[in-house]
Amino acid sequence: MSDQLTSRSENYSQWYQDLVIKADLAENSAVRGCMVIKPHGYAIWEKMQQHLDKMFKDTGHENAYFPLFIPKSFFSKEASHVEGFAKECAIVTHYRLKNDPNGGGVVVDESAKLEEELIVRPTSETIIWNTYRGWIQSYRDLPILVNQWANVVRWEMRTRLFLRTAEFLWQEGHTAHSTSEEAVEETLRMLDVYATFAEEILAIPVIKGVKTANERFAGAIETYCIEALMQDGKALQAGTSHFLGQNFAKAFDVKFTSREGKQEYVWATSWGVSTRMVGALIMSHSDDDGLVLPPRLAPIQVVIVPIYKTDDQAKLVADKAMEIKKLLERKGISVKYDGRDTHKPGWKFAEYEMKGVPVRIAIGPRDVENGSVEVARRDTKEKAVYQVTDIDVKIEHLLNQIQDNIYKLAQNRLEENTYHADTWDEFINILDNKGGFIYAHWDGTSETELKIKEMSKATIRCIPLNNKVEEGKCILTGKPSAQRVIFARAY
Amino acid sequence: MSDQLTSRSENYSQWYQDLVIKADLAENSAVRGCMVIKPHGYAIWEKMQQHLDKMFKDTGHENAYFPLFIPKSFFSKEASHVEGFAKECAIVTHYRLKNDPNGGGVVVDESAKLEEELIVRPTSETIIWNTYRGWIQSYRDLPILVNQWANVVRWEMRTRLFLRTAEFLWQEGHTAHSTSEEAVEETLRMLDVYATFAEEILAIPVIKGVKTANERFAGAIETYCIEALMQDGKALQAGTSHFLGQNFAKAFDVKFTSREGKQEYVWATSWGVSTRMVGALIMSHSDDDGLVLPPRLAPIQVVIVPIYKTDDQAKLVADKAMEIKKLLERKGISVKYDGRDTHKPGWKFAEYEMKGVPVRIAIGPRDVENGSVEVARRDTKEKAVYQVTDIDVKIEHLLNQIQDNIYKLAQNRLEENTYHADTWDEFINILDNKGGFIYAHWDGTSETELKIKEMSKATIRCIPLNNKVEEGKCILTGKPSAQRVIFARAY
Repeated sequence: MSDQLTSRSENYSQWYQDLVIKADLAENSAVRGCMVIKPHGYAIWEKMQQHLDKMFKDTGHENAYFPLFIPKSFFSKEASHVEGFAKECAIVTHYRLKNDPNGGGVVVDESAKLEEELIVRPTSETIIWNTYRGWIQSYRDLPILVNQWANVVRWEMRTRLFLRTAEFLWQEGHTAHSTSEEAVEETLRMLDVYATFAEEILAIPVIKGVKTANERFAGAIETYCIEALMQDGKALQAGTSHFLGQNFAKAFDVKFTSREGKQEYVWATSWGVSTRMVGALIMSHSDDDGLVLPPRLAPIQVVIVPIYKTDDQAKLVADKAMEIKKLLERKGISVKYDGRDTHKPGWKFAEYEMKGVPVRIAIGPRDVENGSVEVARRDTKEKAVYQVTDIDVKIEHLLNQIQDNIYKLAQNRLEENTYHADTWDEFINILDNKGGFIYAHWDGTSETELKIKEMSKATIRCIPLNNKVEEGKCILTGKPSAQRVIFARAY
Repeated sequence: MSDQLTSRSENYSQWYQDLVIKADLAENSAVRGCMVIKPHGYAIWEKMQQHLDKMFKDTGHENAYFPLFIPKSFFSKEASHVEGFAKECAIVTHYRLKNDPNGGGVVVDESAKLEEELIVRPTSETIIWNTYRGWIQSYRDLPILVNQWANVVRWEMRTRLFLRTAEFLWQEGHTAHSTSEEAVEETLRMLDVYATFAEEILAIPVIKGVKTANERFAGAIETYCIEALMQDGKALQAGTSHFLGQNFAKAFDVKFTSREGKQEYVWATSWGVSTRMVGALIMSHSDDDGLVLPPRLAPIQVVIVPIYKTDDQAKLVADKAMEIKKLLERKGISVKYDGRDTHKPGWKFAEYEMKGVPVRIAIGPRDVENGSVEVARRDTKEKAVYQVTDIDVKIEHLLNQIQDNIYKLAQNRLEENTYHADTWDEFINILDNKGGFIYAHWDGTSETELKIKEMSKATIRCIPLNNKVEEGKCILTGKPSAQRVIFARAY
């Protein structure tokens, strides 16, 4: 079959690329590094948005929208921030095209040069904190709990669909608080929201932790993250939540009058997840036949495929199928009936396997007679004959089972691929032959961290929250260490 | 009261500006022409998105996402398209900043110049049709019914919050069809969707029509529109739907094999509405006390304000309020309970009037005793005492009444401000003294249309669909005319 994917064992990276294209999720565009998110891929992102947006609102946040462009001078106001983003940004310098007087077609009109260049936002802390200055006078104006759904641009040189693209879609929360404690609490609350979302909706188990100074967001005091493990043993950072301290308030002069009447700088957080999550989802659960979607995230949860030869059979089967569809929809299950006569059932089966629909129901004239249907689940490929009685309850139950099973598989994989290494040789051996998360001692210096990265291509993914205190020796330098941290090679 | 708006009669334009700011809808940003959409304004846009997105999906469309940037060369491929947009676009020329070696801070790194400039999309026909070329081979791949929610940039020189901004949010539908008939049908279907949305949800009556050649979208064969009338007698184009013929298919070489095995160019439509709709909404219904929102679009439909003096009263009243809140919410009504003790009830009343909440319920200890509440409607300012029995049914009914009333008021205004003019003097007299829509004869030439615009500042808003055939003489040239068209001064 020409539509087959490269297998994971043969070439994991090619398998991923094949899957994204053949499951109609996304493709590269004519613009370097920018992707086109196709309807099926976008529907998955929309489901992510729906779940997250509700969780944000349930925790008191509102949405707003800030400009796409950031004046260059704003960028420079927070020193480490500009350092982190200046090397990979799209810069608008002109605002008009004109016809080339020499007949060279349409060219930039040099007379329409901007006085100050505009940066296409790679993240919005600077423009938002410049705005917050006007919104905040007193403690009564705090907290500000705002989120933005937006596109951002980081001029990445090596891009990969969903995982790393020059333009991507994301949400960025930006909150303002009157105390450090409250801001830290918010940072951790949103980390929990991300972890809950990843585990309960995406069925991806994650480790919550804090980044080392070296891996921190440019401008943050602390960066918290959720780290997931892909099927190839590589880690993927799936979301981050930053405690920004007063850095941006100081850079943009945002002060408030406290209850005690004092002028103080405002405390900040920011937190985001992006379309990268779609990449994480694909790489967590999918197999050599295509995408595997957890039911709670699947845009279509059940597909019904009719099987018939004659027109009479077609009608008989379609009527029964529509009946079942209605029953399921009344339970809040999203169902697609694929009655196209341009494609054979076998072709459709392969198509919906590729696209990751959790449950397939096939129904033929014999089934109608017997009051039964054939039910196939995408995750295990198991097929079973179900009596139609209470089909809605049974399918609802099955969808829950699938969700649990997908999570359990990922959870088992995470556990099986989590190692402890006490020596450098052990460390390298695990990295080269198994991959996975490696708990190892580290002497706590950026210098050692960078040397380990250079030598092994592994990075410290995080220091897990509530980490065990355990004295030991750094795997590289042998210097004393107070705790193990998690290393991995990562996306 | 310092929070009062400039009255509409005093200065309509200032009233609008005041309202947008004081109702916390939006504000100008530090970036020329770009606005910050504040949470209350964004919540209104989200409601618009929800309604429209459902209507798009109910008519068979899916969402997707295309790149923010368009290569300059794509832009030039459709001649009239580039002509229409080249003079107002943001152009990305570089992709890196660096530290100025001369100590001038962060500057553009001239060595990171793009080979081909990228245009920040002012609309996406070109990048989308370049993509569709890869999606379409045969008639089996058609139709493609895709919509995109996105930000776009048009470098407008004179901007006004929501009505005209350099960056704005919108949706753009881009569909591909195998026949001209089907594409025209789609164009008109989406025009109907817009009209239904405007009238039934926004409570804004609109006239559906077709634009003259002069007012057509750059690259379209026909542009259809919905035109609304604001309180100051000026027209506002609230949505457009374009039949693009084969123009973009030809420019990007998008062909398909027909059922008959022939190679043919694909037929196209595009259609969009933007955050401009928020401006239309504000100017249609609001008054000198602030925003008036139709209940079907209001993010908060009912606000409950407690009135009390002692702590005991506070608890008594809050308990009753929460009971009512739950009852209403069970009916799907969105309710906010404002129990803040930092503000007086009168202050809250003014605040929610300013923000346009359709219904306010005030409840004090006496009300609890009597089993009653005070209900105030935003549109008419009427207050009434309601018994609490069946309060949910009564409020639901009231919200429907308000929706109907707001629409009827706007409908009456539209009718009262629609005129016929048969001479130039009459025409100018109406424009200068009354405003509104003017049905007048026009000789059908672009030349006359432009002259009329120059002389009167009025434009042809549209030729209404199903227009009456009526012979007459052009108000400017006296030449024969086969029908009246609608003129107005417009936003």
